[in-house]
Amino acid sequence: MELPSRLLENAVDEISQLPGIGKRTALRLALHLLRQPENQTLLLSSALEKMRKEIQYCKQCHNISDSETCKICESNTRNKSIICVVEDVRDVMAIEGTGSFKGVYHVLGGKINPIEGIGPSQLNISSLVAKVSKGDISEVIFALSSTMEGDTTNFYIYKQLKEYSVLTSTIARGISIGDELEYADEVTLGRSLMHRIPFEQSIKQV
Amino acid sequence: MELPSRLLENAVDEISQLPGIGKRTALRLALHLLRQPENQTLLLSSALEKMRKEIQYCKQCHNISDSETCKICESNTRNKSIICVVEDVRDVMAIEGTGSFKGVYHVLGGKINPIEGIGPSQLNISSLVAKVSKGDISEVIFALSSTMEGDTTNFYIYKQLKEYSVLTSTIARGISIGDELEYADEVTLGRSLMHRIPFEQSIKQV
Ligand SMILES: [Zn+2]
Ligand SMILES: [Zn+2]
Repeated sequence: MELPSRLLENAVDEISQLPGIGKRTALRLALHLLRQPENQTLLLSSALEKMRKEIQYCKQCHNISDSETCKICESNTRNKSIICVVEDVRDVMAIEGTGSFKGVYHVLGGKINPIEGIGPSQLNISSLVAKVSKGDISEVIFALSSTMEGDTTNFYIYKQLKEYSVLTSTIARGISIGDELEYADEVTLGRSLMHRIPFEQSIKQV
Repeated sequence: MELPSRLLENAVDEISQLPGIGKRTALRLALHLLRQPENQTLLLSSALEKMRKEIQYCKQCHNISDSETCKICESNTRNKSIICVVEDVRDVMAIEGTGSFKGVYHVLGGKINPIEGIGPSQLNISSLVAKVSKGDISEVIFALSSTMEGDTTNFYIYKQLKEYSVLTSTIARGISIGDELEYADEVTLGRSLMHRIPFEQSIKQV
């Protein structure tokens, strides 16, 4: 694919660095921007630059924030002794969306992934251990996705926390509400059977 | 979806202005950029800004170019009396890829589309008519995609050119009706150019 302009080619190259966007889609997006008023591109480019340069991470929980401490960590209504460990900000948003969690978060910033060269030191793990070591934390809830990387990360942190008197738990794995049993994958179905709870308890939770 | 940062929200809003990219995908892309080295975002944002601000359009054919006149129009080996009318730069690239066309192009910059509010005056049509009116053009080949908008645009230009003694032809419909030109394979596209037929004949067939 030979482009007639190096400016266009350069933009296409950079856009296609984004995950899931090939050269053809990148070209389509670049041509779209060229057809729109100049301001749309300038707003996009400056929003990206500003975000990357100025974004902050909460010094308590490492969640993305516009201030030193995020709103959740700053809130008086949250129980600071219960920490929910998640991969990234999308998980915080998903759990906040349920309205059922009143503790605080700890955002790891990823999962241990040897194939992609992501080790424990590149994640926000030591700061979690430091928090727990101070003795003010009663429970750490693991809420990582149940992939091999998620399980590896869970187990790594679990071992780090073992010496402290902190309760560790993991969110229940099961069949999604409304899902047909027959379409569930075997591992999920197996786990949901293993982790079955007294029926009375399941009614109380709702 | 409540984001924890206005900088992030702003970036997500701007990314999701792009066609085919929803809020969820935009968030995934923004978080990806935040995980990558800062330089990747800065290269992307400056490439977009530079492209939008500095890109030029060939004053002969309106193709995207880094100079006043594009390489095709500047070339001594191209037959300037045969003009192939296309929608945008992707079509130029697709036809150039076949290696079977030795004339020059005229890039309309879109198709007539009343629903999207695109009329003839927003396209590079008058400059084509002006070129033809000078009498140096022997043939105008219509190579727009065979959609309703493409056919409308073809017919509009055909009527504008009718008073001049210029041969008008349309690429052979070896390409399926409704297919976008850029996705055609090179052999089909090359043959459909070779087997172009007088425009009048193409109307009769319909
Ligand atoms: Zn926080
Ligand atoms: Zn040109």
